[in-house]
Amino acid sequence: MPAHDQMVATVHAYVDAFDREDIDAIVRLFAPNATVEDPIGTPVHRGTKAIRAFYAMPISMHAKLTLEGPVRTVDGIAAFPFSVTVPIEGARRRIDVIDTFSFDENGMVLEMHAYWGPENVHQL
Amino acid sequence: MPAHDQMVATVHAYVDAFDREDIDAIVRLFAPNATVEDPIGTPVHRGTKAIRAFYAMPISMHAKLTLEGPVRTVDGIAAFPFSVTVPIEGARRRIDVIDTFSFDENGMVLEMHAYWGPENVHQL
Repeated sequence: MPAHDQMVATVHAYVDAFDREDIDAIVRLFAPNATVEDPIGTPVHRGTKAIRAFYAMPISMHAKLTLEGPVRTVDGIAAFPFSVTVPIEGARRRIDVIDTFSFDENGMVLEMHAYWGPENVHQL
Repeated sequence: MPAHDQMVATVHAYVDAFDREDIDAIVRLFAPNATVEDPIGTPVHRGTKAIRAFYAMPISMHAKLTLEGPVRTVDGIAAFPFSVTVPIEGARRRIDVIDTFSFDENGMVLEMHAYWGPENVHQL
């Protein structure tokens, strides 16, 4: 099971990859058979190809992530609060999100779940 | 499925019940067959009696909760970041936590999971 510091570093690498709009750096954090459910209750994206396709949209929209508190870690899982800002025709939208990353024994993200709904989307 | 505002109200009622050290008010938020796993990876407390016994400890220690950001809601689940402060012989300890509450169709909490580990505990 990865150590706290390793899981925190992965979360920071995820945020930084959005900053650089570096989709390869995002995909590299996930295990080959990983799943992404964002938000919870929507169809699951499974495997490298599907995960890359999923992240292409927010990256193309210049979505940026800001951590909104410390990363909580327990039992091979990291949970972290953050906001996403997306520029839209001169305005901006902010979404408040909590993600969980479940890690495999190699420190790769095996399952990602995102908690956010329509009420967490705000016009700025 | 409960509405966003109802789930947020339950989270606030949970925080307020800690403020008042009102264990009955905490237990009332949970369905009779609810489960509490706090933190993730530890034995699950199932049912009203076990849940009451679990919360007796933090209430007796005067643990207080502070929300550290907005409540995220999706698909009948609320996820929220908060800190717990516990006074200990003149000092204080702070724990950074994220909880998820999964609700049943009556708006009662059916599953609670808490994300925090040793690295999230700080001496103040």
